[in-house]
Amino acid sequence: MSLIVQKYGGSSVADLERIRMVASRIRRYFLEGHSVVVVVSAMGKTTDALLAMAQELHPLPPEREVDMLLATGEQVSVALLSIALFAQGVPSVSLTGGQAGIITTDTHTKARILRVQVERILRYLREGKVVIVAGFQGITEDGEITTLGRGGSDTTACALAAALQAEVCEIYTDVEGVFTADPRIVPKARKILRISYDEMSEMASLGAKVLQLRAVDFARLYRVRVHVRSTFSENEGTWVEEVENMEDVKVRAITHNLDVVKVVLLGVPDKPGVAALVLRTLVDCAVSLDMIIQSEGREGKKDIAFVIPREDKGKVHKALESLQKMLPLEGVTFDEGVGKVSVVGAGVANDPRIAFRMFDTLARLGVNIDMISTSNLRISCLIPRDRVAESVSALHETFIEDSEVMLREGS
Amino acid sequence: MSLIVQKYGGSSVADLERIRMVASRIRRYFLEGHSVVVVVSAMGKTTDALLAMAQELHPLPPEREVDMLLATGEQVSVALLSIALFAQGVPSVSLTGGQAGIITTDTHTKARILRVQVERILRYLREGKVVIVAGFQGITEDGEITTLGRGGSDTTACALAAALQAEVCEIYTDVEGVFTADPRIVPKARKILRISYDEMSEMASLGAKVLQLRAVDFARLYRVRVHVRSTFSENEGTWVEEVENMEDVKVRAITHNLDVVKVVLLGVPDKPGVAALVLRTLVDCAVSLDMIIQSEGREGKKDIAFVIPREDKGKVHKALESLQKMLPLEGVTFDEGVGKVSVVGAGVANDPRIAFRMFDTLARLGVNIDMISTSNLRISCLIPRDRVAESVSALHETFIEDSEVMLREGS
Repeated sequence: MSLIVQKYGGSSVADLERIRMVASRIRRYFLEGHSVVVVVSAMGKTTDALLAMAQELHPLPPEREVDMLLATGEQVSVALLSIALFAQGVPSVSLTGGQAGIITTDTHTKARILRVQVERILRYLREGKVVIVAGFQGITEDGEITTLGRGGSDTTACALAAALQAEVCEIYTDVEGVFTADPRIVPKARKILRISYDEMSEMASLGAKVLQLRAVDFARLYRVRVHVRSTFSENEGTWVEEVENMEDVKVRAITHNLDVVKVVLLGVPDKPGVAALVLRTLVDCAVSLDMIIQSEGREGKKDIAFVIPREDKGKVHKALESLQKMLPLEGVTFDEGVGKVSVVGAGVANDPRIAFRMFDTLARLGVNIDMISTSNLRISCLIPRDRVAESVSALHETFIEDSEVMLREGS
Repeated sequence: MSLIVQKYGGSSVADLERIRMVASRIRRYFLEGHSVVVVVSAMGKTTDALLAMAQELHPLPPEREVDMLLATGEQVSVALLSIALFAQGVPSVSLTGGQAGIITTDTHTKARILRVQVERILRYLREGKVVIVAGFQGITEDGEITTLGRGGSDTTACALAAALQAEVCEIYTDVEGVFTADPRIVPKARKILRISYDEMSEMASLGAKVLQLRAVDFARLYRVRVHVRSTFSENEGTWVEEVENMEDVKVRAITHNLDVVKVVLLGVPDKPGVAALVLRTLVDCAVSLDMIIQSEGREGKKDIAFVIPREDKGKVHKALESLQKMLPLEGVTFDEGVGKVSVVGAGVANDPRIAFRMFDTLARLGVNIDMISTSNLRISCLIPRDRVAESVSALHETFIEDSEVMLREGS
């Protein structure tokens, strides 16, 4: 039988009752003869609670110690899940990230996986055991405990699936799969049955929270078939996999992101190299930038605007402080009254009709477009925050509900 | 300056406020120039709470997984204490038992320390850091996480003090030191300033909970000076150390233990080898036995009585089940209405006057002595549970309060 990697998120193991449910599901696969490797997150809001304690002691606790602290959350989950499986007669063994051979860089709180040493997992699988691995964590060459950043359990699962050449990496979550838009905003949103790595990667980077961007990139790199599905139902979810090139350009989903801030640097000297200096300073502080535009120069000055994730605001403040030592600025504004809507699909930016229909849809709503950015896989518009919901609905109607192509494979 | 090992128990780090207090105390030693290695237990009742979750999933969870689960408790404590030290400007680093080089046997939930690899601790000390080690836990040669059993943090501290050749191992607890009797029962009980390893070991084995027996044995073996003192005061506590041989036999303390059960096997065949079989069966089940007596044989039968710790009752039931397959018994009784009182001091059992005064004191109270056992360092009597408190008080008066020898060094 085949080797399956399953990942269960925090809400799937939020309490002992749910841990028992997860154990029952694993048991079914085990009894069918599959080799099962399970990746588990911390129970419910454990990670937030631990972090809150650390921050009560110091607003900026040392990241090495934060990792030491947070890693306990997943260790509790894996041990309890192993005991729940024991209670159901299934032999299993729990492993910390380090024990499972997840070797990472030493960039604490956002370490990257360097490689996976799977010998120990394979040994336990050969002994007929379900192997339960603590997600979100790893160990450096020096034996230091690291964590992989938010959503890191997805990355653990995809990395293990790649290293073990698993048939599938199942990501269990509290929704039924990847949708054409957020169902809370667009009731007619449909579950997407199949989506390509590239499209899923773009959606993840645009704020779709169902699957972590880095996990998608791992899956794409190693061609891991990912199945995003619900812990609480038996329905098939969304397959993320290699999708053969399709002739038709089509919009796969409408995404939106409210956790963005527009930053404008006013009166930047209009000289060669200045924009590069600004961007370098921001990128050096690990800020994610998007939608950068410069105004036309006037009187030797120009404005530079860009969009950042809300969580990076602190870093941007810091970066701009060091920037202002090198470069006179007339001012800086932070605008939180914005949101980003995007249409996603392979090749959308290459088809001018799609951009036209997007802008036309927003124009008919009377929504002002502040900034635009595109890639091969998406067109994004920055619009007023309070117009995002109706814009997503209208775009969904334009591109998804009215599309016959979609209907052929809609769920 | 000198190297000091400090151990803080669960009540000393029960919440963030107490963790800050502990950090302040460590900071003082650090600023005085000492090299400090700190061993910490899990916060408050964390271990019990984790164990309760495991047992809700299965009454007898696999011990390997229990260790995986419980080890998180101390890992949380060390990380938080390190963050608290950072907030007070003290450089520190936290380590799991495994990272600290505590190598143990693979007998999960009650592993024994095989050796301590101190290279990593020494490296951090050379870097000028306070090193904070998770107590109660270790790692096997195979990288499996183990725990050392109840009170194991004391053992971790004494083992580290031995391996690091520390000047002193300070055991911080919620009492002022080791007392001549339990102060809750005997208000006149005095703090003992100095006590020998042998006497402390005997007291620990008799139920004095202030210092774990295995820790004392470690300290004795490696001649670690132990200082038992209060987290909540600056007073000197009790020094456990090599005490030069004293001419005078003296009683150092009166201990008592209510967590005991008297077991009687009725009608055991009175044949050679039977008692050995009974004892072997019990010892094989890891039961601690004390005060074993056999009745006189009658009609080819005899009774065998012994005393066990209350927590071993389950194991004894199990052992007797397997015993009864080999050996016909007329019956088994468990008597929980008993308690043990002991007088402790080097050589007490060699001086018949002490035994006489002990029995005489109890006789004058009208307390019936059910069983007696002695070692070089103590005389113990099993008496009715409801007479223990007054017996301890009377014995304390006889041996401690009336003793001029003690008065000379009483605190």
